[in-house]
Amino acid sequence: MCPAPIEDDGKRGFIIPIGGGEDRVKEMAIHRKFVELSGGPDADIVVIPTASMLEETGPDYHRIFSELGAGKVEFLPIAQRSDCDNPEFSEMLDNATGIFITGGNQLRLSAILGGTLVAQRIRRRNAAGVPVAGTSAGASIMSEHMVAGGSGSTAPAEGNVTLAPGIGLTNAVIIDQHFTQRNRLGRLLTASSYNPFLIGLGIDEDTAAFIGPENVLEVVGSGTVTVVDASQLTHSSMWDARPGEALSLLGLRLDVLNEGCRYDLTAHMAYPPDEHLALCALPVTDGDNTA
Amino acid sequence: MCPAPIEDDGKRGFIIPIGGGEDRVKEMAIHRKFVELSGGPDADIVVIPTASMLEETGPDYHRIFSELGAGKVEFLPIAQRSDCDNPEFSEMLDNATGIFITGGNQLRLSAILGGTLVAQRIRRRNAAGVPVAGTSAGASIMSEHMVAGGSGSTAPAEGNVTLAPGIGLTNAVIIDQHFTQRNRLGRLLTASSYNPFLIGLGIDEDTAAFIGPENVLEVVGSGTVTVVDASQLTHSSMWDARPGEALSLLGLRLDVLNEGCRYDLTAHMAYPPDEHLALCALPVTDGDNTA
Repeated sequence: MCPAPIEDDGKRGFIIPIGGGEDRVKEMAIHRKFVELSGGPDADIVVIPTASMLEETGPDYHRIFSELGAGKVEFLPIAQRSDCDNPEFSEMLDNATGIFITGGNQLRLSAILGGTLVAQRIRRRNAAGVPVAGTSAGASIMSEHMVAGGSGSTAPAEGNVTLAPGIGLTNAVIIDQHFTQRNRLGRLLTASSYNPFLIGLGIDEDTAAFIGPENVLEVVGSGTVTVVDASQLTHSSMWDARPGEALSLLGLRLDVLNEGCRYDLTAHMAYPPDEHLALCALPVTDGDNTA
Repeated sequence: MCPAPIEDDGKRGFIIPIGGGEDRVKEMAIHRKFVELSGGPDADIVVIPTASMLEETGPDYHRIFSELGAGKVEFLPIAQRSDCDNPEFSEMLDNATGIFITGGNQLRLSAILGGTLVAQRIRRRNAAGVPVAGTSAGASIMSEHMVAGGSGSTAPAEGNVTLAPGIGLTNAVIIDQHFTQRNRLGRLLTASSYNPFLIGLGIDEDTAAFIGPENVLEVVGSGTVTVVDASQLTHSSMWDARPGEALSLLGLRLDVLNEGCRYDLTAHMAYPPDEHLALCALPVTDGDNTA
């Protein structure tokens, strides 16, 4: 799915993939910024849990977002595709000022949400300026092309990644999560090299990429976001490789970003935390060290 | 240690780091090329085994190099530092047309060989045109700055790599081995970012980088050589990171090379197998597909 069109005078909302395993009890820096972007005391946050995790995750996210000052927190109890066409859910999303997609299995998420009114509303609300965050599987599903699975390895290899269509908030990137923790560079390199148009974002646990309206992302959290840029690829042996064969990929660019670093997805440029850049100015909260 | 000076009309011999675990029974492509470079039927190959492995590795390498047609194969039975100043060993090295350093522990190797006549002779013979190959620990020890140890991870982190002085056949690169198999990208990124002058070579098992006299390397074997080029680094948080903290490294270049690919260490350029490049023309043997 492609991103919904943005109105002439409007700005897309933040897209916030989180690498999973984020801090939910101490600083909660990632959730804190999400709540602020959603309006703080005026926020109306709608959480989309994967059906299987509803009982556990529901109360947890209600506590987190309430503790952080969100005015209202609601859940969409989606267990199957038919739930997604409930008009009440569409109305809840139409009123939402922030949308949060929890973890689980991204293929289950895409299979349940894909092509439904819920997926359509998420795209439309994001295009209208509403921030959408997702963690783990909820991060993967955000892009048009989604990493559905694959094996953990540093090296790229034909067939070591499975792609599927996501809900398509952005088509500039392809997202992988639990990145360092599960050794996923190889599959992200493979995915990026399939079509070098896509910038690969490898997001660590307890780390998020806040992708602003101007397609500049800023990193928040304790780990790193690895940006794989294959746009300058000079050679790839991907198309004639046998399954499992070692591949050549020449001309890759890699940026490893920690907290406060930014990356301009349009210009393919990385910036350190202390460099002046008006784009993607996240709200500054107490105790955080982002620019 | 620095490379020995090359005489005016001379050319340095090939430097051949191998990632360990190379095929010793089937095609033996890496050893085959090494024997050819050493002179084939006229070859006088001297093997430097780590003391602890002598009993097992000695007969094995004798079989391999003899099967591949080497005229003469000898061993230096080095068990301790004092052995390295045996004048007979210096003479054997002075007559060698190929030198092979086996695996083991690179710190043991450097602690035993470092600063001895054997290390000096290896450097001098290489500067005089003799190829020197080393596998696993024997690969690590070839460079001036050696990866002595560290933890396996995709992400760079301050303190996740230990460096030590190697025997210094080259100071253009820093070498890591068993690369994909032991998930060593993070420590190689860390090492390269310590001083971006160094190009990092991450060499897979059953894979070798044949670094020619002109500092162009060619890949032989079933895996890949990952080239980490930090020379265009625009930002690093290495110097003010706390131990274990996530680091930023912006502006890295990465080339993943499979068999037949070449990399010019001076120009920092990668070339696919089919591209014409006169440099580093390895001898073509039956059944191999290098250019």
